[in-house]
Amino acid sequence: MTRHLLSIDDVSAEEIQQLFATAAEMHDVQKREVKKLPALRGRTVINLFFEDSTRTRSSFEIAGKWLSADVINLSAKGSSASKGESLRDTVLTVTAMGVDGLVMRHSASGAAHQVAGWLDIPVINAGDGMHEHPTQALLDGYTLQRQLGSPGSLEGKRIAIVGDLTHSRVFRSNVKSLGKLGASVVAVAPPTLMPSGIAEWAKADGFATSYTLDDVLPEVDAVMMLRVQRERMSGGYFPTSREYTVGYGLTRQRLGLLRDGVPILHPGPMNRGLEISPEAADAASSRILDQVSAGVAIRMSVLYHLLAGEESA
Amino acid sequence: MTRHLLSIDDVSAEEIQQLFATAAEMHDVQKREVKKLPALRGRTVINLFFEDSTRTRSSFEIAGKWLSADVINLSAKGSSASKGESLRDTVLTVTAMGVDGLVMRHSASGAAHQVAGWLDIPVINAGDGMHEHPTQALLDGYTLQRQLGSPGSLEGKRIAIVGDLTHSRVFRSNVKSLGKLGASVVAVAPPTLMPSGIAEWAKADGFATSYTLDDVLPEVDAVMMLRVQRERMSGGYFPTSREYTVGYGLTRQRLGLLRDGVPILHPGPMNRGLEISPEAADAASSRILDQVSAGVAIRMSVLYHLLAGEESA
Amino acid sequence: MTRHLLSIDDVSAEEIQQLFATAAEMHDVQKREVKKLPALRGRTVINLFFEDSTRTRSSFEIAGKWLSADVINLSAKGSSASKGESLRDTVLTVTAMGVDGLVMRHSASGAAHQVAGWLDIPVINAGDGMHEHPTQALLDGYTLQRQLGSPGSLEGKRIAIVGDLTHSRVFRSNVKSLGKLGASVVAVAPPTLMPSGIAEWAKADGFATSYTLDDVLPEVDAVMMLRVQRERMSGGYFPTSREYTVGYGLTRQRLGLLRDGVPILHPGPMNRGLEISPEAADAASSRILDQVSAGVAIRMSVLYHLLAGEESA
Repeated sequence: MTRHLLSIDDVSAEEIQQLFATAAEMHDVQKREVKKLPALRGRTVINLFFEDSTRTRSSFEIAGKWLSADVINLSAKGSSASKGESLRDTVLTVTAMGVDGLVMRHSASGAAHQVAGWLDIPVINAGDGMHEHPTQALLDGYTLQRQLGSPGSLEGKRIAIVGDLTHSRVFRSNVKSLGKLGASVVAVAPPTLMPSGIAEWAKADGFATSYTLDDVLPEVDAVMMLRVQRERMSGGYFPTSREYTVGYGLTRQRLGLLRDGVPILHPGPMNRGLEISPEAADAASSRILDQVSAGVAIRMSVLYHLLAGEESA
Repeated sequence: MTRHLLSIDDVSAEEIQQLFATAAEMHDVQKREVKKLPALRGRTVINLFFEDSTRTRSSFEIAGKWLSADVINLSAKGSSASKGESLRDTVLTVTAMGVDGLVMRHSASGAAHQVAGWLDIPVINAGDGMHEHPTQALLDGYTLQRQLGSPGSLEGKRIAIVGDLTHSRVFRSNVKSLGKLGASVVAVAPPTLMPSGIAEWAKADGFATSYTLDDVLPEVDAVMMLRVQRERMSGGYFPTSREYTVGYGLTRQRLGLLRDGVPILHPGPMNRGLEISPEAADAASSRILDQVSAGVAIRMSVLYHLLAGEESA
Repeated sequence: MTRHLLSIDDVSAEEIQQLFATAAEMHDVQKREVKKLPALRGRTVINLFFEDSTRTRSSFEIAGKWLSADVINLSAKGSSASKGESLRDTVLTVTAMGVDGLVMRHSASGAAHQVAGWLDIPVINAGDGMHEHPTQALLDGYTLQRQLGSPGSLEGKRIAIVGDLTHSRVFRSNVKSLGKLGASVVAVAPPTLMPSGIAEWAKADGFATSYTLDDVLPEVDAVMMLRVQRERMSGGYFPTSREYTVGYGLTRQRLGLLRDGVPILHPGPMNRGLEISPEAADAASSRILDQVSAGVAIRMSVLYHLLAGEESA
């Protein structure tokens, strides 16, 4: 039975802890001088990116290589996709070459699910439109659990996720993942960037919402700032950059509202001076580079569990 | 004595069978969990692509890596070529780094031959303009022989090649290759996409031609549909897409003209609904994904014979 | 103590000879059938190129792979940098993944120095604006020393460097490097491409200058032609291509002014017919392809000394 990682829905709370435990071992490998593990030697992983992403693509590339896999990067630029080939034909073709796993990013929500239905090899969703980005949520959860948690849980911890919730796949995946880890989430956004129907959603998934960052910050155990897509800030209904920063940026002033040592996260790339101030990004309590480092470990863990012939992830 | 693979002219019927025999072994490797063979460990192959091609480039990249070669991808985008450097200087430079083999694609017919004249390492033509694409023809022949052939031959088999014959390097290479394999080819195209002087050519090379697909389909043992380059369909003399499909597409209706189980091939990427219908592309007798899989095996075989220090290809 | 290679200032004359000695061993490896050395197995090198450069990037990639490192290529195209991320955040992020060395090219003079200040892993400058390109100078010096030198020195040799000195990082690095090797440099350029303040600079660094190539050529032991950036030749003060060739090109006629066997160098890519004639580029005394080959050996040597845990470079 092929297993994929398309959504946080695909992994139980227990499986997340298994992934974290393996990631912790991989994290140690990462600090060694000789980083290679033989686990995926002779296996081939394709990174098929229909959207550019230096950071996520290279994180998966490094993760695969440290497990001794052969990693093939395919960008949609100049690909058959741009010659009018269907998505189905593209993925069937690249995987017919004999690859063992497909990591894919696509601008369309649901693309990874569709693709997984066509293939009998594991598919890892590296971001699909405004839908999900499960490895990002896992690396966020892993980072937070190491910072805050009693072993194996974020029970009782309160995490703020702040920003453009409407368009954020990072938010969607994190709400699910942090819920499974036992944390309580408070989602903060200006009204125009709050998804419609969030009240019912929040009720179903057990998270809170707020329009007022200043009220939330003093109460939380961690704060995760989301990237603002500047190109989405132009429409009449959206705040200007200045308005956004004033209302929802983690400014130097707002840092004072946080309890001492509360970790600050951001999935990157950051817009310094917009959603996050330099003082927040570079604070002693900033865990932003730890997230990047955890990203490789988490992706090694996911590749290992899905491809190494182990029982399951 | 350096050997190249620039054209099907470079390989005898016997050598093609040797390449197929090695490819069959490689094909088995491809199905193993651990796919690495040590044959080219410590050798370096450069993929120098002046034209984009995700599929061919990654097929060669995988083939090289599974033979344990180091594979370097160079795209002409952003390359010295775009800074006004001559083709000769570009290839002399990249190979002066100490590489053992050059895989190249170029938009100019004859480019690979020219390059081979400048180098003392094996050159593999991965497509040069409207001239040749020998590894494509070899993978096509290999796929057909596995489907149709008595071992070692396509003797007595009749193969239709259908489409834009004027501009197709796949056609040119296949006519030669299938001839050497003993098959008889019938080349089908609308008058405006039939190469000028094809009557003499067909006589010399021993293939038949036809303007009427419906007459040909009932008689053949396999049918190979060529990709339509949509951008070439705009001129006044060329058929519209609709006209093309009506006259030369492998439509659902035309499938009924084929004998049972006749294999359907296409080099990809496909224009579904133009030269090939979804029913044909996805038919049980479609061998299109087998072609892709065979492509890696054939390229492993070619790299092995040209680079591994064996007697000959 | 982390060591970088940002500028020729970072290496003493003695260290340059150490790098050359290691490069000579690597050069031999390059000629073997099996080129892999295990020295950097399990280490990861990132090639972070904010400017395109096929030749330098692939030279570093090959060098890293032959030392068994994992090499990750990141181009600024489509990178986080293009999403408004700061240079500091980009390099902190890519190196937080756990890489052991950073090779970088950037259009801004001084970028590599800045980056090195932020990181605790070795940084190798693969060209920063109009500032330095130290591995190019080292491969030039290595090539010249093998051609001209008594072992370990270019003492008493006279080298002409000819071209657009104002904008050339190759010139800047070579002046320093050749000086450390004991050679005397004469810098030749038209007045409009001669850096302002060069008189003081030449005095401090001990090189000569000239506006008249024809006077210089008969006296030199080697001549290094620099690439003309055509796009810089458009302004009113600059010579036209024709004027440039007439005054400063290494034309067929000028070859006769050189003493027999004087080596001709060019960092590539060449503008044949502009700064260098085909007769000069292809002369028996042309060492241009030797430079390319030496480039891999020098980069292997640099990577080895900086990353292999040896005492120092």
